[in-house]
Amino acid sequence: MESIRQRRTIRKYQDKPIPAQLMDELLATACRASTMGGMQLYSIVITRDAAMRERLAPLHFNQPMVRDAAAVLTFCADFNRATHWCAINKADPGYDNFESFFNASIDALLVAQTFCTAAEEAGLGICYLGTTTYEPGKIIDLLLLPALVFPVATVTVGYPAEHPAQPDRLPLDGIVHDETYRDYTDDDIRRIYAYRESLEENKEFVRINGKETLAQVFTDCRYTRADNEAFSRRLLDALHRQRFI
Amino acid sequence: MESIRQRRTIRKYQDKPIPAQLMDELLATACRASTMGGMQLYSIVITRDAAMRERLAPLHFNQPMVRDAAAVLTFCADFNRATHWCAINKADPGYDNFESFFNASIDALLVAQTFCTAAEEAGLGICYLGTTTYEPGKIIDLLLLPALVFPVATVTVGYPAEHPAQPDRLPLDGIVHDETYRDYTDDDIRRIYAYRESLEENKEFVRINGKETLAQVFTDCRYTRADNEAFSRRLLDALHRQRFI
Repeated sequence: MESIRQRRTIRKYQDKPIPAQLMDELLATACRASTMGGMQLYSIVITRDAAMRERLAPLHFNQPMVRDAAAVLTFCADFNRATHWCAINKADPGYDNFESFFNASIDALLVAQTFCTAAEEAGLGICYLGTTTYEPGKIIDLLLLPALVFPVATVTVGYPAEHPAQPDRLPLDGIVHDETYRDYTDDDIRRIYAYRESLEENKEFVRINGKETLAQVFTDCRYTRADNEAFSRRLLDALHRQRFI
Repeated sequence: MESIRQRRTIRKYQDKPIPAQLMDELLATACRASTMGGMQLYSIVITRDAAMRERLAPLHFNQPMVRDAAAVLTFCADFNRATHWCAINKADPGYDNFESFFNASIDALLVAQTFCTAAEEAGLGICYLGTTTYEPGKIIDLLLLPALVFPVATVTVGYPAEHPAQPDRLPLDGIVHDETYRDYTDDDIRRIYAYRESLEENKEFVRINGKETLAQVFTDCRYTRADNEAFSRRLLDALHRQRFI
């Protein structure tokens, strides 16, 4: 538990490969994660090759971790394998629908997070690339994902070359609800976000973006309505293409 | 890592509460998980009250863990809190869309899985209830989830009263792909599933369900097309209602 408590995302890596045996151990450990009906509705595509990284990097907005980490893992929801298994076993699979996509996504994310926890305990550092759901169609093309396979999370992993400060977290009572959801009053919200807003680094973040409040940095710069709506369309288009809707 | 390697899902629990301090530690540890832009796009609703369990149980197909576990945790994708924060900070939030739902779901699942790993390392047992996405509308009603909050995973947790055998896992080379996805031949599929199909418990499973192949147990009994399509409609309806599409 201590390695989870002390964790921070690592974006700078040593130029040092992960031994193949360690990688296999981490992957096998990750596969112990809970999975719907024992079906293991996921696949993991590992990118190590330099030419593939060059092609993958722009799909993740050229975040340097794609080129610098020892490995890039794309965790995919996968009902292709199970469907193929059904098809050659006189069984009629019914997994080309949204429910099945979401169940397979859950499976893929539980494995991804278990991999990350195991990797960190082994002294490695990881970073999730939130960009995975921005350009799913292009990732599908590059990684040759067939129908009923969909990229849901990308993780870069390697030996850390930095030790950044731990980011803050909201107070627990702003996250946890007893018995039923208690919706927040304006005062609740002010209290829950007060510490975050008070941090010097966040005040600086507001200044350099020329904004008035920290929330505006999120809505106007980092996660805008226009981007979210464009990404939503791409995500739904790619789900159609992969036959999940 | 050893506690992950040795893990198994626990469905029978001792009649023994989890100390409040331990629960808070586990929840705080879980919140160290990676989260998009540091936003923590999740809420966790904890059910302990007996009357609430009685009402929650049928929404999870009366699986006994809902009544028997020390606590039931519903992990929710939550853009309500962040949106409220924006609204009182002169920021125009744009998170009522599918992209935002999926991003918040990823956040919620990373926290859920980190909670489970920490709980297991502390000697507790957990079980994911796959039923969460089957009746989202009813869970939303019972837990009073407002718009932009959506239940994505439910975990029961308590002190184990059983030590079941570890379930099998597919061979790693049936899950992991180097550089690009290599689609499976029929022979690949036969090899990948051979051990699973050879297990006596799975042969028994085929017999008691009156089926010819293990795959048919999945397609005809456990996860049928008719159910998946009905659940897909409910899931999409509930996403509309919570204003994520």
